[in-house]
Amino acid sequence: MSDLRPVLFVVGILLVTLGAAMLLPALVDAVAGEDAWRAFLASAALCLFVGGGLVLTNRGGRSELSTRQAFLLTTLSWVVIAAFGALPLTFSGLGLSYTDAFFEAMSGITTTGATVISGLDTAPPGLLLWRALLQWLGGIGIIVIALAILPMLQVGGMQLFRLESSEASEKALPRIAQVAVVVGLIYLGLSAICVLALWAAGMTAFEAIAHAMTTIATGGFSTSDQSIAHFDSAAIDWIVTVFMIVGSLPFILYFAVLRQRAADLVRDSQVRWFFIIVAGSVAGVALWLWLGRATPPFEAIRYAAFNVVSIITGTGYATADYGMWGALPVTAFFFFMFIGGCAGSTSCGIKIFRYQILFAFAGTQLRRLWQPHRIFVARYGGKPIPDSAADAVMTFFFAFGLVFAILAAGLSLMGLDFMTAVSGAATAIANVGPGLGEVIGPSGNFASLPDAAKWLLAAGMLLGRLEIFTVLVLLTPAFWRA
Amino acid sequence: MSDLRPVLFVVGILLVTLGAAMLLPALVDAVAGEDAWRAFLASAALCLFVGGGLVLTNRGGRSELSTRQAFLLTTLSWVVIAAFGALPLTFSGLGLSYTDAFFEAMSGITTTGATVISGLDTAPPGLLLWRALLQWLGGIGIIVIALAILPMLQVGGMQLFRLESSEASEKALPRIAQVAVVVGLIYLGLSAICVLALWAAGMTAFEAIAHAMTTIATGGFSTSDQSIAHFDSAAIDWIVTVFMIVGSLPFILYFAVLRQRAADLVRDSQVRWFFIIVAGSVAGVALWLWLGRATPPFEAIRYAAFNVVSIITGTGYATADYGMWGALPVTAFFFFMFIGGCAGSTSCGIKIFRYQILFAFAGTQLRRLWQPHRIFVARYGGKPIPDSAADAVMTFFFAFGLVFAILAAGLSLMGLDFMTAVSGAATAIANVGPGLGEVIGPSGNFASLPDAAKWLLAAGMLLGRLEIFTVLVLLTPAFWRA
Repeated sequence: MSDLRPVLFVVGILLVTLGAAMLLPALVDAVAGEDAWRAFLASAALCLFVGGGLVLTNRGGRSELSTRQAFLLTTLSWVVIAAFGALPLTFSGLGLSYTDAFFEAMSGITTTGATVISGLDTAPPGLLLWRALLQWLGGIGIIVIALAILPMLQVGGMQLFRLESSEASEKALPRIAQVAVVVGLIYLGLSAICVLALWAAGMTAFEAIAHAMTTIATGGFSTSDQSIAHFDSAAIDWIVTVFMIVGSLPFILYFAVLRQRAADLVRDSQVRWFFIIVAGSVAGVALWLWLGRATPPFEAIRYAAFNVVSIITGTGYATADYGMWGALPVTAFFFFMFIGGCAGSTSCGIKIFRYQILFAFAGTQLRRLWQPHRIFVARYGGKPIPDSAADAVMTFFFAFGLVFAILAAGLSLMGLDFMTAVSGAATAIANVGPGLGEVIGPSGNFASLPDAAKWLLAAGMLLGRLEIFTVLVLLTPAFWRA
Repeated sequence: MSDLRPVLFVVGILLVTLGAAMLLPALVDAVAGEDAWRAFLASAALCLFVGGGLVLTNRGGRSELSTRQAFLLTTLSWVVIAAFGALPLTFSGLGLSYTDAFFEAMSGITTTGATVISGLDTAPPGLLLWRALLQWLGGIGIIVIALAILPMLQVGGMQLFRLESSEASEKALPRIAQVAVVVGLIYLGLSAICVLALWAAGMTAFEAIAHAMTTIATGGFSTSDQSIAHFDSAAIDWIVTVFMIVGSLPFILYFAVLRQRAADLVRDSQVRWFFIIVAGSVAGVALWLWLGRATPPFEAIRYAAFNVVSIITGTGYATADYGMWGALPVTAFFFFMFIGGCAGSTSCGIKIFRYQILFAFAGTQLRRLWQPHRIFVARYGGKPIPDSAADAVMTFFFAFGLVFAILAAGLSLMGLDFMTAVSGAATAIANVGPGLGEVIGPSGNFASLPDAAKWLLAAGMLLGRLEIFTVLVLLTPAFWRA
């Protein structure tokens, strides 16, 4: 790794941006008369100082990144933002250790939504805004990474989503930077619509802003310990449900909608399968609640839709403790964590397109078994799947399973019981938020876990958010030797 | 499927063999003065009648099986043997419903070892012998299938173990029938040695025979409700531990040992990895017991070795309720179920060679990511892995995970709690035996589950034992249309 300068230069820019973002909660807390404004201002100063220093000392490198530099930059930027984003949380007089603050910041920037903080309802507004901002920035960050960097790096089959290979209509926007700007504007616009909807449905302006940011980012941080259940409003539940779905669709397709080609959104096989899976899962859980637990049908649909969408999209809000819904929902919610949304969205997990590819391959495999002399081609979106993408998806699935098992074993080594360990590992690597069981379930909190478990879970969030291989590559000695 | 005759002919032969085998427990029960001899005699008569009828009415077909006939035969023979093998269990006055009897017989023939029977210690000896015989026959059956049929059918990457492609030394035994006979003799010989060892260590002759049969088959049925804990003997524990391992190694390699080429056994990378994984897992659990729970070190090693080997090999004996060993062992034992033994052994699960291939692919994937212009070749046993085998292994891993999730969701739909549902699904599909938790854990029993859950678990055992795709292929409509 001869030249770290271009990497450190970009990290510096990100830190300066982060520091600038901290001025917003500083302002809010200052206006609200909360002492915590000092914590934000001090942290902002530190970010601007370190970030500015990095920018100034690393100017003048080549502007093109090599593949190795791109890998290093992607992981390093997430770690650095979590490390510095944690500062105001630990300085702010909430009594959070740096471990807790780092866990919370990593949970924020990876849009996971697992929290160690309780007493949110009475926390300083700047702190609540900062948690929401971390998720909102993490959401747009991952969309840009998924559009611009992961396809180039061919991580986990993301090469299928190279902009060059898309429809002719997208060729009008050849440059990735332009795409990023337009997607950023779409993200901002959708967030604004969500703010207005939530405000109209009865949230305060502040609550609406904070929740819109964590909804569109499929993040799941709330301003209340009770999460969305705090508002107890069907209208708010449905608005949040819709925008969690909006955050889980491929943002590139909103281009098409802007160009009056809404049909593109429906034609996309990934989107279609996402809706089929979500509808089927909601229907299953709603039927269980209605027939098995005598919940009135409309209430069953409302609670099933909200909580199922929250887990499948990896948001992690809750309007009920589905741990108390009986046998099926607990096991079903565990497996929902492994689904995820669409590629190029803010959502996480294994993701729909990978299941499509795995199913397509399993299907050709089945037909080939008893017709060994015929040739079967697995397709995605009508086109044959290139071998390199298929291999990448299949090894991704294995790596996901393996990291999940290692995390769960590691958590149990620290004394966590079976359900907490396996659901904690799943919720971290799939960036969902809550786990299952009494400790870390939807009405629980991660605060009581041992510090080592928090670091392990934070590592799992990072691995999951960056599609595993992006991080694993840095752990191979050969990467550093070359 | 134009011609079912060759399939039904072989099924007939298997039924006649099964009927003949039933005469053994009939004799034992008659000598012991147990009324159950009538149940065995009546079942034997039925098997001989139906089997003989199938043989007589389906003679004269072609002796060569087509690929489709081979698929149908493999699954059909396991189902038919379970269906008829259940008869004496339901006739024998133990009060078992046919569902319970079928579950027990399927658990036997698939060498799973999950049981619905309690009161084994006072059960008629013929019944105990029959359970042991089912596992022993299931064990040799799966070795022959793995040697002769699965490589031809290219199921789950088993084409890597085609006899033709092996070392020159095996070419001296070109015909599969000859190989089957020799492997059968080796199986018999190893069983006999195990009987003698167990008898010398203090078991009665009958106990030694019954346990040797279920040990070498990595089955796990015992003659006592307490399983091997009943004997409370370190010598017996270690003998069983060794022979569970013997049953999990590739039987074809015992050829090499017979030819004074024992080094082949050690050189085989699958065997080497099996030992590394087993040793590492035993060491981990033993350290936990010693340091974490103050168990004396030798006792910790003895209990860890026995129970870890029992689960990894899919045997399912227990000498302790590892559910009471604290946090780490419960989660670890859950993941141990997904390991399995070597290909061409009596053991089950995903199996070591598939992990080797998955790791090899993940490794090339990692190196390729940042060196996209270099070519990396994944190897198994020093040779490049053919694409077809790699694809088969990777889709197998996905199919295993998917069937596991569907089984677990199905079990939870029937009201089973999270731990019972997920560990029950895992223990069925991996053919282990006991699950986790109070209901189906090592000191539990499957009797209390609802009937639908028992049928589902039996289906899972069949899928797991026949490497999933062998069975799935029969569920595709195209298979029957062609």
